[in-house]
Amino acid sequence: MSDIVTFGETMLRLSPPDGERLESATEFEVHAGGAESNVAIAADRLGATATWLSKVPETPLGRRVVGEIRRHGIETDVVWSHRGRQGTYYLEQAGEPRGTNVIYDRENTAISTAEAREFDIERIQDARVFFTTGITPALSSTLRETTANMLKAARQGGTTTAFDFNYRNKLWSPDEARETLTRLFPGIDVLVIAARDARTVLGFEGDPRQLAHKLGSQYDFTTVIVTRGSEGAIGWHDSVVHDQEAYETDTVSPIGTGDAFTGAFIARRLHGEDVPTALEYAAATAAIKRTIPGDVALLSKDEVDAVVKDGGTALSR
Amino acid sequence: MSDIVTFGETMLRLSPPDGERLESATEFEVHAGGAESNVAIAADRLGATATWLSKVPETPLGRRVVGEIRRHGIETDVVWSHRGRQGTYYLEQAGEPRGTNVIYDRENTAISTAEAREFDIERIQDARVFFTTGITPALSSTLRETTANMLKAARQGGTTTAFDFNYRNKLWSPDEARETLTRLFPGIDVLVIAARDARTVLGFEGDPRQLAHKLGSQYDFTTVIVTRGSEGAIGWHDSVVHDQEAYETDTVSPIGTGDAFTGAFIARRLHGEDVPTALEYAAATAAIKRTIPGDVALLSKDEVDAVVKDGGTALSR
Amino acid sequence: MSDIVTFGETMLRLSPPDGERLESATEFEVHAGGAESNVAIAADRLGATATWLSKVPETPLGRRVVGEIRRHGIETDVVWSHRGRQGTYYLEQAGEPRGTNVIYDRENTAISTAEAREFDIERIQDARVFFTTGITPALSSTLRETTANMLKAARQGGTTTAFDFNYRNKLWSPDEARETLTRLFPGIDVLVIAARDARTVLGFEGDPRQLAHKLGSQYDFTTVIVTRGSEGAIGWHDSVVHDQEAYETDTVSPIGTGDAFTGAFIARRLHGEDVPTALEYAAATAAIKRTIPGDVALLSKDEVDAVVKDGGTALSR
Amino acid sequence: MSDIVTFGETMLRLSPPDGERLESATEFEVHAGGAESNVAIAADRLGATATWLSKVPETPLGRRVVGEIRRHGIETDVVWSHRGRQGTYYLEQAGEPRGTNVIYDRENTAISTAEAREFDIERIQDARVFFTTGITPALSSTLRETTANMLKAARQGGTTTAFDFNYRNKLWSPDEARETLTRLFPGIDVLVIAARDARTVLGFEGDPRQLAHKLGSQYDFTTVIVTRGSEGAIGWHDSVVHDQEAYETDTVSPIGTGDAFTGAFIARRLHGEDVPTALEYAAATAAIKRTIPGDVALLSKDEVDAVVKDGGTALSR
Amino acid sequence: MSDIVTFGETMLRLSPPDGERLESATEFEVHAGGAESNVAIAADRLGATATWLSKVPETPLGRRVVGEIRRHGIETDVVWSHRGRQGTYYLEQAGEPRGTNVIYDRENTAISTAEAREFDIERIQDARVFFTTGITPALSSTLRETTANMLKAARQGGTTTAFDFNYRNKLWSPDEARETLTRLFPGIDVLVIAARDARTVLGFEGDPRQLAHKLGSQYDFTTVIVTRGSEGAIGWHDSVVHDQEAYETDTVSPIGTGDAFTGAFIARRLHGEDVPTALEYAAATAAIKRTIPGDVALLSKDEVDAVVKDGGTALSR
Amino acid sequence: MSDIVTFGETMLRLSPPDGERLESATEFEVHAGGAESNVAIAADRLGATATWLSKVPETPLGRRVVGEIRRHGIETDVVWSHRGRQGTYYLEQAGEPRGTNVIYDRENTAISTAEAREFDIERIQDARVFFTTGITPALSSTLRETTANMLKAARQGGTTTAFDFNYRNKLWSPDEARETLTRLFPGIDVLVIAARDARTVLGFEGDPRQLAHKLGSQYDFTTVIVTRGSEGAIGWHDSVVHDQEAYETDTVSPIGTGDAFTGAFIARRLHGEDVPTALEYAAATAAIKRTIPGDVALLSKDEVDAVVKDGGTALSR
Repeated sequence: MSDIVTFGETMLRLSPPDGERLESATEFEVHAGGAESNVAIAADRLGATATWLSKVPETPLGRRVVGEIRRHGIETDVVWSHRGRQGTYYLEQAGEPRGTNVIYDRENTAISTAEAREFDIERIQDARVFFTTGITPALSSTLRETTANMLKAARQGGTTTAFDFNYRNKLWSPDEARETLTRLFPGIDVLVIAARDARTVLGFEGDPRQLAHKLGSQYDFTTVIVTRGSEGAIGWHDSVVHDQEAYETDTVSPIGTGDAFTGAFIARRLHGEDVPTALEYAAATAAIKRTIPGDVALLSKDEVDAVVKDGGTALSR
Repeated sequence: MSDIVTFGETMLRLSPPDGERLESATEFEVHAGGAESNVAIAADRLGATATWLSKVPETPLGRRVVGEIRRHGIETDVVWSHRGRQGTYYLEQAGEPRGTNVIYDRENTAISTAEAREFDIERIQDARVFFTTGITPALSSTLRETTANMLKAARQGGTTTAFDFNYRNKLWSPDEARETLTRLFPGIDVLVIAARDARTVLGFEGDPRQLAHKLGSQYDFTTVIVTRGSEGAIGWHDSVVHDQEAYETDTVSPIGTGDAFTGAFIARRLHGEDVPTALEYAAATAAIKRTIPGDVALLSKDEVDAVVKDGGTALSR
Repeated sequence: MSDIVTFGETMLRLSPPDGERLESATEFEVHAGGAESNVAIAADRLGATATWLSKVPETPLGRRVVGEIRRHGIETDVVWSHRGRQGTYYLEQAGEPRGTNVIYDRENTAISTAEAREFDIERIQDARVFFTTGITPALSSTLRETTANMLKAARQGGTTTAFDFNYRNKLWSPDEARETLTRLFPGIDVLVIAARDARTVLGFEGDPRQLAHKLGSQYDFTTVIVTRGSEGAIGWHDSVVHDQEAYETDTVSPIGTGDAFTGAFIARRLHGEDVPTALEYAAATAAIKRTIPGDVALLSKDEVDAVVKDGGTALSR
Repeated sequence: MSDIVTFGETMLRLSPPDGERLESATEFEVHAGGAESNVAIAADRLGATATWLSKVPETPLGRRVVGEIRRHGIETDVVWSHRGRQGTYYLEQAGEPRGTNVIYDRENTAISTAEAREFDIERIQDARVFFTTGITPALSSTLRETTANMLKAARQGGTTTAFDFNYRNKLWSPDEARETLTRLFPGIDVLVIAARDARTVLGFEGDPRQLAHKLGSQYDFTTVIVTRGSEGAIGWHDSVVHDQEAYETDTVSPIGTGDAFTGAFIARRLHGEDVPTALEYAAATAAIKRTIPGDVALLSKDEVDAVVKDGGTALSR
Repeated sequence: MSDIVTFGETMLRLSPPDGERLESATEFEVHAGGAESNVAIAADRLGATATWLSKVPETPLGRRVVGEIRRHGIETDVVWSHRGRQGTYYLEQAGEPRGTNVIYDRENTAISTAEAREFDIERIQDARVFFTTGITPALSSTLRETTANMLKAARQGGTTTAFDFNYRNKLWSPDEARETLTRLFPGIDVLVIAARDARTVLGFEGDPRQLAHKLGSQYDFTTVIVTRGSEGAIGWHDSVVHDQEAYETDTVSPIGTGDAFTGAFIARRLHGEDVPTALEYAAATAAIKRTIPGDVALLSKDEVDAVVKDGGTALSR
Repeated sequence: MSDIVTFGETMLRLSPPDGERLESATEFEVHAGGAESNVAIAADRLGATATWLSKVPETPLGRRVVGEIRRHGIETDVVWSHRGRQGTYYLEQAGEPRGTNVIYDRENTAISTAEAREFDIERIQDARVFFTTGITPALSSTLRETTANMLKAARQGGTTTAFDFNYRNKLWSPDEARETLTRLFPGIDVLVIAARDARTVLGFEGDPRQLAHKLGSQYDFTTVIVTRGSEGAIGWHDSVVHDQEAYETDTVSPIGTGDAFTGAFIARRLHGEDVPTALEYAAATAAIKRTIPGDVALLSKDEVDAVVKDGGTALSR
């Protein structure tokens, strides 16, 4: 019985080393990454036990993804499938003005056919938090229904529901996303959303504080986190707005920063800390994540403590 | 205007280094490989000019595949597509008893929708040889028709048609393959086929010499090559059968050996050599290929000459 | 509750790539390897659930070792220690006449202070098999006692005890080993031992069949396996001797072959198969292991089935 | 028939990875790079078809260089030589205060004996632009003559001539360069020159705008581009001076930045754009190039469009 | 007979590449590094001949460390030991806020038992400078005595003694360090100390200039260098204080920066330069070191000259 | 004062990894190798102190070569030159039938102008053995004279002279080699020569025993070693012929095998062993060398002892 249960797809990530291009690299680094497993790992590192639910092809590629998540200490409860592909994405990281680029190759994946009844729903209902993101319902119509069913089951079981809006314009249009996701809002307790998505997908206006306020008021969320990238985040809770600055960081890989933030926030909230403290831990976790290659917040709570305490560690020997 | 025009899919090949497993490798080596481009490259190396026709997604992955083929000196005539994936395959090379394993991830690729009318058919009709393999019609029903249309056009243009049977049991059943491919046989001049496929897919019986004879007699082929892996090959031409032994070789990568054989055979035939001589060059090219990582016969005719002449070179310095 | 529980040290293994020498290599490949976790992983792959018990330093190096074992699907029950080093070994693999060489750097490790009372002994007593090796008591006098206590507890709980003799001359002398290990023999049901160790450490004489017989008769073992490297193994059970040949294999790494053999043997026995069948699976698992870099039998039961069935797989595509 | 034909030497570039030093690195990354092929590739990427002329040794090293250029989509028309070396250079990239350093090893190369009559001069005369740089005549006295002859032939054929001054103090003295290159100026339509070279080699004075003006007035150039590194460039055309700022960029490799600029400028001019627009494309291409390892502007016009449009792309997924 | 003789431990350094974590990296880069050999190498590069004394295990790991030092041109005079480990350290380099972290694994090393009488003390007495650091006496009580004995012998032989305070909080407490090291102060001519250590270990107060002054006055040092990281250094000599700024640098690896500084300072002083000039060379050497991976100042005096002269070199080709 | 002094060129060796081809590899492994330094290193490893004389360019590439030799414990006495290139060679290792291939790029190197008077000839005269090979006089006419002068000086100083015939057909013709080298024979005490060279260059006939005998009789050699690759070697000394078989070996790299043989033979002879014993050590050293990448016999005398004693070591742990 884990503190937090997450559900979603984790992809095989293929990326050329050191700024090289997909068009010419002779080797790809291989990682596994997906918002929901990233959040589970970050939560685990910050003190919450975590389980990841998914549907995965019974192939070496599928086993690799699951093994990678297990090695980070996460319990996995996986439906092994003999149909459907392992989702992949090609990642080309680069500085400005080239920018980081992602090519998704995630159609007809095993998870796209996952139905709620294939999973042990009691796991969700026994957990303290159930988490998924806006990526999951974007993957197939089956998954739209599955996401709704899981959120409903969680609510019925008294499990807090947390949801990262995570709009991906390579998966669906703003209109589709808005229509689908706002329909899920009534079942969600904690919403995490980028200020940009609140504006361009949901059509809200105003500064991030106003966005948080409007979202919190209009729907029945307990907590709303509006993220602002390098400018930090806004936490709205019980009608109070909290400002959290981002820590300065030497970025090695931006991928997974938001997931590290969210996982840490949830873990510290579960640990009983108040929203401002949880936001501080979330920001510190996100900052350390940015120094780490791969999707995953491969860090220890001690390291996060050190950053929260004095904003970074000098050479320690 | 090239001596030989080939048509088919070339995949991105992802393989773990040095006997590692897909399930745990942290990097994949990236190559491009496909029977038809492999044959084009081998033919080019052995003295024939070559063009490769295909339909490829307009992405960095697609451009990578095309660039890789171009670098080996092949002319490419590619339909760039905004729909359909880049075909990929995962290759795990290993010695016995593990054996080499391939995981195809080539559904819904760009080429699966390729129709003959998308290509400049005169390129085929101006060439001396048109070549494709049994993999191409296995990829989609559209491609079955396209393959038939291209073979027909070649025949009409007076272009010799060459075809490698290349049965792949991960793509279709023996029955499907037999039904589809034997229907193409009347349009084919030169058939290359593994002894194993002649038996298990086509249902012929006998030793390789008998297989070659039966195939040559039953259908209207000019030339039939029956390949036998490390035991060499049989060439049937004008009702005469020629035996070709395989050269001893320190195998680094077996992938593409057959394509190297076929490309070299066609090139030397085009150059005017008789069947036994062309088979000898084919066997030597295949042997050198096996010492080279990747799918491609990245070698020079001089090297093949040396092997044909004295069965291998000692340390040359 | 796992089928098999193993107890022992897993080291960080540092090895230069590709035949290079420790004296000059500029990078080391990093693996985790230890007889008892290797056996757990092989058993898991062959169908038994497995748990690994150990004592590990609470450092990134310790977490790495534990994570690596977890990723292979093994449950871990680890005493995290703030004292004692992470054991390491440097491995230089080479062909003849250089031979493979190991430099141990495993003094004062965390596990050397592990006492039975630090572990949840019920885990051992609830399992069907408890397994450890002769390496564990070689590491410290505390561990001699711990090993004896665990074997005793297992016996009390009705758990079958299995033990790999695994003499290491870089850890102790034959005399020390004989004295210590024979004292443990009464508590052991299944003994695995190399013919060489039976002769040079225990002082038995005769061919492997005779060694198995003498060992089985003199002590109260249910089963004795005498391993003979590339010449196969002998299984003695209920006074009957079974001969198992080794499969031919293209060796990439010999390290962990014996552990793969033992893990597979135990798993198939647990699954209800008779000794000859279990030996056959063990030999096939060992043969595939040799094609895999690292200490671990990173393979699937399907692959082992294929080898058992037809002695190896050809290129599969 | 290509839009642009370039002539010059492309070297094999050997560079230690990641800031390591030539004195101790155990591996070198291998690229092919030369100003004239770099320009051809950049021009091709920005929409102009391109051909590269050169003389190259008939060795694996020579074939490698030619293959590398071909893979980027450039037509190559190469005189294969059995005499003369493949030019090489050793590149050590580093930040300040160490700085990037180059060791040339390009004496007695195949190209140093290249004469105009060895090439199909009609290719130059059929093109819309002929391009070479001040490096070519620096390599041998034969090449001084060849450069002059090719420029003359281009002029006779009505082909626009473009020339990058590219002074290299490791190849010749400022006096030699000035004397040789100013003699070529009458045959040149478009001159690209670094402000530094205009001052220290040609002896002009003033700010870059003045340099451009003086150069344009004194000689009979149609267009003069004065480049200023990170401070942008000045374009002088029809007596009008245009200022182009450089884009901010996260530099991975500065090598080839100028060539990317020049290739893009020529391509966009050929496409009919006016000088300010072409300069903007040139600056954006140069900025993206700096994020890419190797000598070559391995990018797409779409990426350049995006930078021109909004000064860089954010994470796109 | 070398200008400078240093004594101390050099460790095998194992570090994950590119910001990866010890917890998951699959390969470690291998270097050799230790303050005293680093200083010897930097001194040699800046024009002084150098010898390194140490006690090293007679293993491939020990030979590797010694070979690495020899390759940089240092004479080595090593006591080969059959007991004691090779010291190792694990280094994880990262930007802020994670910071660089070091895990020492250097207990029970060969050097911990080194006594002065095992070495040829005349080598120390024939040299112009003897150098060691505060790390050496921190390693064992034997080494405390050895350090004292060597300093005494040097003084008796008329050899200048130089000492880098180098407090390491992972080796001992501030109290232990202060007590031990201040007892050595009377035998030391040139002291190098970080401002931070002067404050937190020795308990001095004030700005760096004041620290230098107080240290120089209170003890009988000829020269005191107070280092301040990126803010430069203070040199106190003959009661005069000199300020030296640090050069701006693109840091690749901070490890060894202080050693590069100290080695260069000593070498230039030995060459007869005054303290401000020697400080300038020291700062330039340190700045270049930071652009170089590994512990060692793998640079040439020419490069340092260039930085001193104009503060860094532009691209040179 | 070393036991053995060698003189010759050591090249930078660039080789693609793992059977890849120069034509497409994206990185080259970097080693330093030359017959005379290889022999010095092998001799040192087998117990003789060694010095290597050469003339090397004062560049990072030259420093790298010298540093590499120093790291193996060899004293170097090098004339640093500001003119002339660093010799390079490109090595492509492959199994049969491709075979290993070498491309020399060693014209106009620094050493080609080396004259005897540039070196401290007393070093040669103080040594017990002076060694060079037939490669040295093949490099330039200056070096022919230098070689002759050094051999003469050695003879005058009472130093034994040893010479490896080492014919390289990529450097000169058999006729040139025979004429030049036989002229040196009167000054040589110990000749090492491949049976193949004795036949095709010197025109001798007969089996290797006869070749040794004829060579020994016709010229005034004390000792003649005729090497036969994998078939072992013949040693002729005092008119007695000794047969030495080669040890079976898993070859990783054949380059430098002969040099390892020769260096070991000389070292053991210097140590006072008789010819058959020295040959046995030579053969064992050569066999171990073949398991090691690079040109150099990076091994210990202990390892050679073990092979001599029992023909190879099993897994040692």
